Amino acid sequence: MTSSAGPFRIGLLGHGTVGAALAELLPQRAAQIEHVTGLRPEIVGVLTRSRGDFEQILAASDLVVELIGGIEPARDYVIRAMRAGKHVVTANKQLLAQHGEELWAIARECGVQLRFEAAVAGVVPVIRVLQESLAAAHVERIHGIVNGTSNFILSEMARTGAAYADVLKEAQRLGYAEADPSEDVNGKDAAAKMAILARLAFDTPVHLDQVVCEGIERIGPDDLEYARDLGLGLKLIGTAERVDGGISVRVHPAFLYARHPLASIDGPFNAVTVESEAITEITMSGPGAGGPQTASAVLGDVISAMIPPASTPETSVRLEVVADVVSAFYLHMEVADTPGVLSRITGVLGEHGISVKSVVQKGLGDNARLVMVVHPVLESRFFAAVERIATLTELRTPPRAIRVIEEEFS
Amino acid sequence: MTSSAGPFRIGLLGHGTVGAALAELLPQRAAQIEHVTGLRPEIVGVLTRSRGDFEQILAASDLVVELIGGIEPARDYVIRAMRAGKHVVTANKQLLAQHGEELWAIARECGVQLRFEAAVAGVVPVIRVLQESLAAAHVERIHGIVNGTSNFILSEMARTGAAYADVLKEAQRLGYAEADPSEDVNGKDAAAKMAILARLAFDTPVHLDQVVCEGIERIGPDDLEYARDLGLGLKLIGTAERVDGGISVRVHPAFLYARHPLASIDGPFNAVTVESEAITEITMSGPGAGGPQTASAVLGDVISAMIPPASTPETSVRLEVVADVVSAFYLHMEVADTPGVLSRITGVLGEHGISVKSVVQKGLGDNARLVMVVHPVLESRFFAAVERIATLTELRTPPRAIRVIEEEFS
Ligand SMILES: NC(=O)c1ccc[n+]([C@@H]2O[C@H](COP(=O)([O-])OP(=O)(O)OC[C@H]3O[C@@H](n4cnc5c(N)ncnc54)[C@H](OP(=O)(O)O)[C@@H]3O)[C@@H](O)[C@H]2O)c1
Ligand SMILES: NC(=O)c1ccc[n+]([C@@H]2O[C@H](COP(=O)([O-])OP(=O)(O)OC[C@H]3O[C@@H](n4cnc5c(N)ncnc54)[C@H](OP(=O)(O)O)[C@@H]3O)[C@@H](O)[C@H]2O)c1
Repeated sequence: MTSSAGPFRIGLLGHGTVGAALAELLPQRAAQIEHVTGLRPEIVGVLTRSRGDFEQILAASDLVVELIGGIEPARDYVIRAMRAGKHVVTANKQLLAQHGEELWAIARECGVQLRFEAAVAGVVPVIRVLQESLAAAHVERIHGIVNGTSNFILSEMARTGAAYADVLKEAQRLGYAEADPSEDVNGKDAAAKMAILARLAFDTPVHLDQVVCEGIERIGPDDLEYARDLGLGLKLIGTAERVDGGISVRVHPAFLYARHPLASIDGPFNAVTVESEAITEITMSGPGAGGPQTASAVLGDVISAMIPPASTPETSVRLEVVADVVSAFYLHMEVADTPGVLSRITGVLGEHGISVKSVVQKGLGDNARLVMVVHPVLESRFFAAVERIATLTELRTPPRAIRVIEEEFS
Repeated sequence: MTSSAGPFRIGLLGHGTVGAALAELLPQRAAQIEHVTGLRPEIVGVLTRSRGDFEQILAASDLVVELIGGIEPARDYVIRAMRAGKHVVTANKQLLAQHGEELWAIARECGVQLRFEAAVAGVVPVIRVLQESLAAAHVERIHGIVNGTSNFILSEMARTGAAYADVLKEAQRLGYAEADPSEDVNGKDAAAKMAILARLAFDTPVHLDQVVCEGIERIGPDDLEYARDLGLGLKLIGTAERVDGGISVRVHPAFLYARHPLASIDGPFNAVTVESEAITEITMSGPGAGGPQTASAVLGDVISAMIPPASTPETSVRLEVVADVVSAFYLHMEVADTPGVLSRITGVLGEHGISVKSVVQKGLGDNARLVMVVHPVLESRFFAAVERIATLTELRTPPRAIRVIEEEFS
């Protein structure tokens, strides 16, 4: 597949934030790469909307790096490259979360490598660790902070006490959020990454559409105040875990106990914790995005592809993706400060078999703020109770529920 | 090298904490490993002091796992295995920190793999990440908590306020410290690990003897009290970094600012932070020891060896290992509470060109406790000043100096 002497020829598709950073980084590191691999890497062609010809670049390359993003034409190019016997390195989470099985099958069929470290948590080497270090581990659970924009926003809200909308504007000004941040803040970007991680960890097909997902748009300053008072972290958490012989993959805001390894991850960072009985847990963290950082992860993949193997093996099981799981919850309500209100609310909870762990009530003039934490309960049952509570005449604003991740290892 | 069909045959040298855990784990994971690699791994022989024959095991194996520890006979067995064309996986930090160059050269010469993930931070995949993900990164600095015993002791001292000797006894009772804990608490174990990390990160030979090393035996409860009051972490930190065209590799206790990624690593955990301009920084953490955990890391190496390549390339540069570097310091002194004492001490510091950042003085009857933090200074100059200060008649106990790691990334 690779020319056995002379340079190792790389075709670069896309020359935006990551592509341009890679084009700058590669020549700087070429000598070191030659030392490690015996081959000198060289970019032989660049494709953007305005320059380059895909067929020509393909013919001249040993490996193709896809940094266009989105589904088409990225999918088409990746498939054509593999069918032509070229290795592919990509940072495209959408492509893998939606068409991963098709692409991995073609890679196996064609005997080429398809590498994608940069697609999930930027420079954090979670793909390599899952595929190699933990190739034979029985992974129980992955928790990840895999969207730097939303983590930056929550960190800033916690630090400054400011409201979501204001912090979002500031994040856009600083370049930590895009002009259109919807996929970052509504959890969709994180969901694509969790789909990929779940696929690798559990060896079963997982599609983006199977990931349950909730964003951070409704988090208020008083949720973060509550977190601070109790020494908890409040993060947008991706979870992929085994439940009852199946798996659950989801993204939502969650409170984390203070000593959870993800509770202290602040700012635009990503971090992933992998739990398994034999290893206990591993946590990895680092910048989740940025041109040079993402390009470094791409380069690590290029080097690995220059040395032989490691393909993504066919999935060996087909696990059910469960949507309804058990979780503890925080429930935030603004209510009329009347005598019967607390008992009516706890009554509804009781009817649904939900048991309350703690209640904090604060007076706000005629109204009161009620914050409850309930013990773990099946989510569908909890949400049914919340729906009933929302209809109570004492409610001033819709109740707000956030999951609570409790300590399991000690 | 590997028999192309049938099982993949593993010879196991050592059946202690890690060896026995591996012998238990491997059969449990054999089917998954066969799925990933196409070969079914099998332990074909075990060597201990009382059973097994090395030559016989060697002849029957495709790969040898060395879990004896120490230099001889481990070194001899590892060399003989490689010379016989077998891959080797080892968890032996002493062997690699003292004879690494010899062993890596033989591995290259014989075209076999020598893998050693478990030698440095247990299940934390720092070796793989340095050798693969960061193979072409220009690493600037590594900070590591690479000894779980000493980290457990410092965490417990911080949590309980108890003295070093009492916490050590408790750690021994709980199995977090061995009957003879000297190598753990005097920094020697961490020094061996940092030598290996520095070798990989900077691509230059580093021997254990070149690592400057100081342990935690002299840390007192009031040092930890000081850390808590200022929101700092106090850890046994290994550092490997570039300085003035050379490198420095050292192990010593250090205060860490609260947001340093290692400041929150508590208990018997290990963690490593790798800094490089392009990647900013990556942090990895997890259990640093324990039978099943270490065996899991060994197993990851076995699987990688079952799939082809990745050798440790020959070093390409020969960097000077610098012993004297610049550091900020905390200086703890118990002095007679007389008028001139502070000015005499700051006078000595001034003569040595050392500038004071903060001073806290607490009365203790006729005596006082003085805690100073000084700005970064060449260590030799600082220690010369401390030596002078120790001779002052007002000093009640020898002064105690601990390095302070200040914020660099923000
Ligand atoms: N940015 C990050 O920090 C980051 C982090 C992790 C992963 N990623 C992933 O990396 C990939 C690239 O991201 P990016 O931020 O570098 O994107 P970007 O800045 O928008 O750059 C995209 C590049 O692709 C080119 N392109 C777009 N459509 C094309 C088409 N139809 N044919 C040929 N070229 C086309 C663009 O060409 P023009 O120059 O002509 O517009 C541009 O050069 C995405 O999959 C993204 O999810 C990015
Ligand atoms: N324990 C951990 O958590 C941990 C973590 C990371 C790395 N490591 C490393 O892993 C290695 C093994 O550690 P361990 O804790 O498993 O050691 P261990 O419990 O002391 O076991 C050592 C084993 O080696 C055997 N052995 C000793 N000398 C021998 C000789 N001359 N010939 C043949 N066999 C001999 C012993 O045989 P007998 O059974 O006959 O005594 C025993 O089975 C060491 O390099 C250690 O640094 C350990």
